[in-house]
Amino acid sequence: MFTRTVTLGASALILAATAMAQEAAPLDAAIESTTKVLIQQGLNDDVGLKFVEDLTTEVGQRLAGSESEARARDWSVAELEELGFDNVRVETFEIPFWSRKSESVAVMGESAQPLVATALGGSAPTPKGGVTAEVVRFESLYDLQQAPISKVDGKIVFIDEGMIKTMDGSGYGMAVRKRSQCAKVSVEKGAVACLIRSVGTQPHRMPHTGIMARDGAEAEGAVAAISGPDADQLTRLLERGPVTVSVDIQTEIKTNAPSGNVIAELTGTDLKDEIILLGCHLDSWDLGTGALDDGAGCGIVVGAAMLIAGLDERPRRTIRVVLYGAEEVGLFGATAYAREHGDDLDKHVLASESDFGAGPIWRFQTRFGEAALPYARTIQNLLMPLGVTPDDNRAFGGPDIGILARAGVPVVTPGQNGMDYFDYHHTPDDTFDKIKPAEFRQNIAVYAAFAYIAAETGWDFRRQPDPEEIGTE
Amino acid sequence: MFTRTVTLGASALILAATAMAQEAAPLDAAIESTTKVLIQQGLNDDVGLKFVEDLTTEVGQRLAGSESEARARDWSVAELEELGFDNVRVETFEIPFWSRKSESVAVMGESAQPLVATALGGSAPTPKGGVTAEVVRFESLYDLQQAPISKVDGKIVFIDEGMIKTMDGSGYGMAVRKRSQCAKVSVEKGAVACLIRSVGTQPHRMPHTGIMARDGAEAEGAVAAISGPDADQLTRLLERGPVTVSVDIQTEIKTNAPSGNVIAELTGTDLKDEIILLGCHLDSWDLGTGALDDGAGCGIVVGAAMLIAGLDERPRRTIRVVLYGAEEVGLFGATAYAREHGDDLDKHVLASESDFGAGPIWRFQTRFGEAALPYARTIQNLLMPLGVTPDDNRAFGGPDIGILARAGVPVVTPGQNGMDYFDYHHTPDDTFDKIKPAEFRQNIAVYAAFAYIAAETGWDFRRQPDPEEIGTE
Repeated sequence: MFTRTVTLGASALILAATAMAQEAAPLDAAIESTTKVLIQQGLNDDVGLKFVEDLTTEVGQRLAGSESEARARDWSVAELEELGFDNVRVETFEIPFWSRKSESVAVMGESAQPLVATALGGSAPTPKGGVTAEVVRFESLYDLQQAPISKVDGKIVFIDEGMIKTMDGSGYGMAVRKRSQCAKVSVEKGAVACLIRSVGTQPHRMPHTGIMARDGAEAEGAVAAISGPDADQLTRLLERGPVTVSVDIQTEIKTNAPSGNVIAELTGTDLKDEIILLGCHLDSWDLGTGALDDGAGCGIVVGAAMLIAGLDERPRRTIRVVLYGAEEVGLFGATAYAREHGDDLDKHVLASESDFGAGPIWRFQTRFGEAALPYARTIQNLLMPLGVTPDDNRAFGGPDIGILARAGVPVVTPGQNGMDYFDYHHTPDDTFDKIKPAEFRQNIAVYAAFAYIAAETGWDFRRQPDPEEIGTE
Repeated sequence: MFTRTVTLGASALILAATAMAQEAAPLDAAIESTTKVLIQQGLNDDVGLKFVEDLTTEVGQRLAGSESEARARDWSVAELEELGFDNVRVETFEIPFWSRKSESVAVMGESAQPLVATALGGSAPTPKGGVTAEVVRFESLYDLQQAPISKVDGKIVFIDEGMIKTMDGSGYGMAVRKRSQCAKVSVEKGAVACLIRSVGTQPHRMPHTGIMARDGAEAEGAVAAISGPDADQLTRLLERGPVTVSVDIQTEIKTNAPSGNVIAELTGTDLKDEIILLGCHLDSWDLGTGALDDGAGCGIVVGAAMLIAGLDERPRRTIRVVLYGAEEVGLFGATAYAREHGDDLDKHVLASESDFGAGPIWRFQTRFGEAALPYARTIQNLLMPLGVTPDDNRAFGGPDIGILARAGVPVVTPGQNGMDYFDYHHTPDDTFDKIKPAEFRQNIAVYAAFAYIAAETGWDFRRQPDPEEIGTE
């Protein structure tokens, strides 16, 4: 996951109660019956899990713009064709490419010792051999922003802001700001490098990478994340006196590198021009194998689509699976998709995206037209036995489909329990073994259910209230 | 901890019952009262915890034979003198020195990807640029030992043997054999390198280092541990077909490097020639900061001794704290101590060692003469309120004092709960934040209690049964 808008959601309980008060739209008995079968099949699915296992094992990491991401596209095309999808294709685009060559951070002097660090995506290289300077610590990005130049000039900045563990990932929005902004603010004030406390929620010496704000391939400054225990260590050393640190980051930069979105479809019948889009992203960070972020999402949407493909008849609308490229480094695949399909957005009747790991879905948000809310209620009713709470109509969509949602495409967001997501996110630990199969399969059941209903009913999720209805209120 | 003999201990419950059936020796009321005060002080102690915090922060890692270990000796001498110990000194010796320069392990070919690896202590370097060969996997060291040369010759061996999590660390004894022997057995059969599943119990991509069998500074073969998730990944790849891996390990070797034992005492009164030895080791592996292994042990014995130093009067016997050097790389400090003090072992009336992390003590083993068991019972009675179960008279002692125990010195082993110890042991994650203060302080209470009783009573823990007593049975 690249970034995520925070939904504070006044009180989920009240919103859920509101959703439940909404009358459900009637659903054809055969559709309901098939949905229930799909849910049961989802809970026992192996196709989706195998997809993630194979992708993360046979391809491994898939850094955007790299040879590995290209291999992942080839691999996905072959796999999706083998599974029987229609119109499997790649829509290519170019991106600015960044990769790490090496990074090392060490305390110098009497307490000389290495710190465990990882360069942030987009970090500029330091001069060869690194930079060495005294550390100045700030408790927050805000404090750095407020600091006078005299305090920062010539120093190595250290922002020691923490991150809170939450189910909905809302702690990330705040914590990630320092990742994005440290270089820019530091460089403006004359710092020679920046260190941040790793944006994550685990106590291991395993720092989290992630993209920083940049213009083109490379950001202005050199930035590395140090792990939580290393941030604690550096803080303890600073309590004892001035600390000098050396930072050596070497990176590779290319202006243009290939990326692409992999697209595959289950062609519909009488409404085949209307699209249900199920998204995920194929690229990953370089440190892990991108199992939770976002191999799982791809396994979930592919697995769900394959369950629908296994029905006796294709549903009326087309189900389009999009494995976006280059999400992590700036949502390039999302932008490319919107550019490529901009004239066709009214044909996108519903979009959803899985990009928050493999935890169980605990709530179901929508962003439908007001008059279409009974459809949300019908779907939510059918998901309740899976432990999914009906939630509000303020779904953000997700990083990759956010651009579609903002253009008016109706979206649903099945909200996963992400309590542990930021323990692994963007670290070497994002590997296949972290996926819990039963939880992962519950996701497939949810996606198969709502995608099938949306594809088979022909419901218009954009539907606004009838002006006359409004008049009578 | 370097290595540990496994005590399977038929049934701890039965042994505990046996211990409890043993009559306790009477204890002077003033000694009992002071012991109880020491226990309460131990549970609130800050000196021991501060010692670990300062050591691991201000010195950091302390690889045996390195400049860092030398700094740790200087630091410890200054600290122990500052705390008021007597006769603070270093007994130096020389060791073969090994250190890592770099290591990288990567899958080659279609599924090209890096594996997270750490060279084992003593690993020979590969030729510059590494070796590349097909992998041959064995489920155990035993299977490798049984394999024909034709299966191994020219290959990279991979031993994928797991480790079970246990409270007493007994899973380590078996799992560590592959770490010790892989190079030797592989090289004999013509392998070009060896990879082992990391000897540890956590699911993170954080492999555990540790020493391997060697003759001198450098072992015969190049060996690296790969993390559990990487071992799983390699196994999944091997299920799909042959796998070629490159292994590049570069190391630094010196024949002779300085190490030493740091010794500090609380001189006794009328029995000052008699010694209660409390041990730990000052060196650590290079990846973490050696907080659990074995900064904690040093904090515990120093903290306990300092509580006794705070009493109005010194106890009768001398309490000697020994911070052993170069434990991890082959118990060189233990050997040096035995050599230096070999003529004086009869004056060592009791020895104990803390080298199994900072978990709470749950049992108390002794190795006393049979007739001295009532003393064990008395001590055990006083420790029961701390949740410590009386245990058997088959204490091993510990890695560093094992040599004394085998020479007849009575020992006690306060058994810590090591369920999580091998999650951190020999990894970058062995840092100060992993110590839980309340559990750590319970250790100080236990050590202060038995050390004080042993020093003040003048009891002879070597005491064998009176021949006449035996005759009357």
